[in-house]
Order: sequence, then structure tokens, then C-alpha cells
Amino acid sequence: MSPPAGGSADGWAADSRAAELCETALAGDRRSLARLLTAVENRTPIAEAALRRLYPLAGKAHLVGITGPPGAGKSTLVAALVGELRAAGRTVAVVAVDPSSPITGGAILGDRVRMQAYAGDRDVFIRSMAARGHAGGLASTTGAACAVLDAAGFEIVMIETVGTGQSEVEVAAAADTTVVLEAPEMGDEIQAIKAGLLEVADLVVVNKGDRPGAQRTASQLRAMLGGRRGQHGPPVMITTAATGAGVPELLAAIDRRRAEGALDDAAATRLARAEAEVRGALADRIGRLLAEPTLAAARETAVRAVAAHRIDPYSAADELLRTLVGPDGRPGSAR
Amino acid sequence: MSPPAGGSADGWAADSRAAELCETALAGDRRSLARLLTAVENRTPIAEAALRRLYPLAGKAHLVGITGPPGAGKSTLVAALVGELRAAGRTVAVVAVDPSSPITGGAILGDRVRMQAYAGDRDVFIRSMAARGHAGGLASTTGAACAVLDAAGFEIVMIETVGTGQSEVEVAAAADTTVVLEAPEMGDEIQAIKAGLLEVADLVVVNKGDRPGAQRTASQLRAMLGGRRGQHGPPVMITTAATGAGVPELLAAIDRRRAEGALDDAAATRLARAEAEVRGALADRIGRLLAEPTLAAARETAVRAVAAHRIDPYSAADELLRTLVGPDGRPGSAR
Repeated sequence: MSPPAGGSADGWAADSRAAELCETALAGDRRSLARLLTAVENRTPIAEAALRRLYPLAGKAHLVGITGPPGAGKSTLVAALVGELRAAGRTVAVVAVDPSSPITGGAILGDRVRMQAYAGDRDVFIRSMAARGHAGGLASTTGAACAVLDAAGFEIVMIETVGTGQSEVEVAAAADTTVVLEAPEMGDEIQAIKAGLLEVADLVVVNKGDRPGAQRTASQLRAMLGGRRGQHGPPVMITTAATGAGVPELLAAIDRRRAEGALDDAAATRLARAEAEVRGALADRIGRLLAEPTLAAARETAVRAVAAHRIDPYSAADELLRTLVGPDGRPGSAR
Repeated sequence: MSPPAGGSADGWAADSRAAELCETALAGDRRSLARLLTAVENRTPIAEAALRRLYPLAGKAHLVGITGPPGAGKSTLVAALVGELRAAGRTVAVVAVDPSSPITGGAILGDRVRMQAYAGDRDVFIRSMAARGHAGGLASTTGAACAVLDAAGFEIVMIETVGTGQSEVEVAAAADTTVVLEAPEMGDEIQAIKAGLLEVADLVVVNKGDRPGAQRTASQLRAMLGGRRGQHGPPVMITTAATGAGVPELLAAIDRRRAEGALDDAAATRLARAEAEVRGALADRIGRLLAEPTLAAARETAVRAVAAHRIDPYSAADELLRTLVGPDGRPGSAR
């Protein structure tokens, strides 16, 4: 495989380290896999070099987004699905996206106790990822993490996000199959509607099905989703993740998505995800070129000129873009 | 002034429309100013063309960020500062950044009743901006909006953000002067600390100063901010925005920042803002080049190859970057 374009000494070092980590991760070493995911999370040169190697091996896993308003029981349902998959001898990875804000902080993966049952199980891999500092890049970072886990051979990769912000909705929508959870509602308002989540749902689940109002919430959702312009809405199912009721049926519905073409290369979500990843890579590439010491002077000059309002940011960007790409049109060849 | 690089027919049309809007906005037409800000919010080609024209005229306004946890009384304080400025015959614009999420929605600028007093006052301009769909680009979009208002001649541009997320903190930190509000706390926890806001504060204000605990909260904040490594912390002041108490002193402290060099071209915040704006412009430029019909085929091919895992996103990005920039190193010359 080829090293990064315009490979510097640092590029070669990253590539060599990535090669080592990929080899051991693919051979089943979980610590190497964890390190690759850390590199992806921090968008380091190792991540880029590793993705170049791993990406062609990916594309087989079913990426399943699990999202919903806080309190809908996402973590418990993820744990129940993991249990169901393991009982059938299937492999599964979970990426819990943590939209760490200065205020909320903390991890989503609340159900650590249940998950600890799998601490020694090499066919389950659980990882929480911070969203901090990657505003806008969350979808492409999560996509890259999924590609690594996919290449590592996990059959299903679940992405758990709390559906409370635009970027979390984008992450959920980037999965092959998006499961939107809703708790039974006592009032009239269905939380998932307020959050704009139903629009991205492939499967809708009313969880905590043993509570009063579950059937009524499911009926409301069916009426709402099925009634529009005569189209079939997404299936609405009822689960009680805490007892496991309805979980096998949900897994069967998830599996049916594969037969329905959700994992085909030309599926809309796969194309959208590819586009987000290309845009993310482009942003990384440009960010990294801008950070090169050889370009520091040009960058510095541009920023000072903009700060002094001698030039507008767009003209400065054009100037930098020309410098970045160099006279022969090869990225990095300006060096 | 020069049109956008590689100017197409569309580029010329945008430039001509921008020229018209800039001329009328600078002549005092508020509807044209509002339209320019809408263009900036949507990052249209008109915004780019307008910024090329207006940017050299900007750099004189004092950009004042007003942030703090929900309930600290930001809108009321902004209204009180506007009143104080108008009483002195000074001009002021307010940009209220609305971190519209699918869940929270709505506008921050809650104190509309107070603000309506200025409905007929041409020396006050109030605008709320949605953050929706610009994750990560919020800082550069806000920067561009401030540059437009700055060029339009407002002496002070206030940026009101609720300090509850990384991007809102970034927006606040991009101002020349960042005022962090805190309400008197009954408990032990100071909200602004949890939100990581104090780190970006140039001035700290305990608002709702007529409530019990205001003095104690101010003392706690002073002890906390002044005690670290023998450095002087930011001033901690007490205001009661609802009655106006402490507001003239706060405005005097804001004005002192200008004398202290906060508005100098080489001030750290001005350089950081310029860098964010250059990066934002670079992202816009690349996004727009990618969207060009003449490049649709290359983009489509790259995305399909990535979706099929025939190529990794980084290699696809490199390929696109070469196509984008063209053989002579001029952006857009590939056409």
C-alpha cells in the first residue's frame, strides 16, 4: 500500500506504526484495536495511514445506529441486543458517541454493569468516543471508527448516540440502519418528534414496553408515520429491554434490512457516509497541510493580513490554497 | 474590487448583487444590512462577494461577547447595556446566536419587549442568528456577521451566546472582550465553572446583584480567579441588569479594554478570529468548488469508489484536491 501523498519522515513513521497496529489488530489484538480507535478519535496521521490500509477491508459490517431522547433506555437496549447477538455466537462492536459538552460531560454508556459481563469476551468490543473538539467532524470521525471495527471483522457495529443535537442526528443517520427509541409517553408530546429523529428512523422502537401507555404511544407513532402521502412508514415495534421482551424480534428486523439492500454500496446512506468521509478527509488534509512548518510563514502572513483587515478571509484562503497545492497541482508539493 | 477567483457567470451575478447590497447597507439601509446578514448566515456566494468588499472597512468596532449559563440574565444585561450606550448617543449592534437544536429550538433573544423600545432607532441593530446546520462553522459565520456590522459603522457589536456548548464557548472567546455572567448561587457550585466559561472571561459579572448570595458568589469568584499562580484574574463585577445598577461601571470596564489593546490587530483574540475566518473561508471555497457542476463527475466517482471501499477517503480526497486545483495551481482552473 502506498504511503501518504507527499510522504515526509513523519508520514513514514506514522505509516510504519499504523502498519504494525493494523497487523496486530487484524490478528485479534484488542489493545492495538483500541489504539487505532484513539488515533481515529484524535485524527492523527496514524489514523490516516491506518484507514488507507483498513478501508478496503471494510464494508461488510452492518452499521446500526441506536438513538433517541435521554431516558428512552438506549444503553439497556444496546446491552440487550449485544446479549442476543452473543447468545447466537455473533460478533458485535459498540461505539457510544459521547457528546461531551462543557456542561453535560460524562459518558453515555451508562449500562456499564451489564456490559462488564462481556469483559473477557473477545467477540464484543465496546468503545465510547468523545465528540469534544470535533464539532462538525463527528460524522466523519464516527464513520472512520466504524470502518476500523468493520475491517477488524465485527459483524454488527452499533453506534449509540443521544438524539439531542444536530450532529448526533447526523451520526445516527449515517448508519446503514437507524433505530430510533421512544419511551411510552404519558402526555401528548412524543420526544422523538420534537428532536426531529423520526425523519431519520428506519425502525422505531417504543421501549419500556411494560409501562402503561406503550401500546398507545406505538399506535400514535404508527398513525403518524404510516399516514403520510400513502407511503409505508418505518415499522414501529415494542421492546422491554430490561427483560428482553421484543429484543429477538427487533434483531430480526435489523437483520432483514441487510436482505433489503441497506448494506449495498449504492444505498443512499452508504453514499452519504462516503461523502461525509471524503469531506472529512479533505478537511483533515488541508488542516494538516496548513500545519506544516514549511507553510507556517504563508499561514502567519495570511492570518496577520486578515486580522489587520488588509485582506478578506476569502482572498486569503485562495492565496493559501494556491500555496498549499503548489505549482504542479500536487498537494504538498509546495515544499 | 476583484470578483471571486475563477469567476463564473454565477460569481459575477453574486458580485453585482453584493455590490448593490453593500452600497445601500453602507448608506444606512437596514433592510439591505439584514439581507447581507442572511447571506452570511447561509454562507451564499453573495456573502463571500460582500465580505470581499466590506472586510477592508471593518476592524474598528469593539466586539463584545456576552455569555453565561441559562438563567444568568444575559438578555436583560444586553438590553441594559444597549440602553446605556444609546443614552450616550453611541451606536450598537447585537448578534444573538441561537444554538438551534432539534430539541431546544427557539430564539435566545428573550427580552424582546425591552428591545422593542429600539424598533425605530436606526443606531441599534438587533439580529438573531441560527446555528443550525453550521456545526463547527459557527465561529467563522459569527465572525463574518460581525465584520459586516463593523463595516456598517456600529461602534460596539455585542454577541450574545448561551454558554452551554463547545461551539458557543468558541464564539464567545472570539470576541475582543468576553463578558461571562453568573447568577448568585445558593449552592456551592458556580455554573460558569462547570461550563468551562471562566477560562475565556475577560470580565466576570455576577448579575441579579439584588439577590442574596451575590456578594458571596463574587468573593468566591475573585478568590478563585485571582489566586492562581500569582496572576491577576479578570475583574469580577456585580450588576443588577433589571434595575440598571452596576451597568455604567460594566460599560466603563468594557471601554477600558480598548485602551488596553484588546482591539489591536495583533491581539491574540483578533489573530485567533482571523485564523478561524480563514479556515472557514477555505472550507467554503472547497465546498463550493466541490459543488460545481463541472466537477460533479469527479466527485461522484470518488464518493462511489469510497462507498464501495475500493479506495479510502484520504486517497479520494487527495485525488479530488488535485482535480479541484487544476494543473496550474489556480483554484477552479480545472474547468
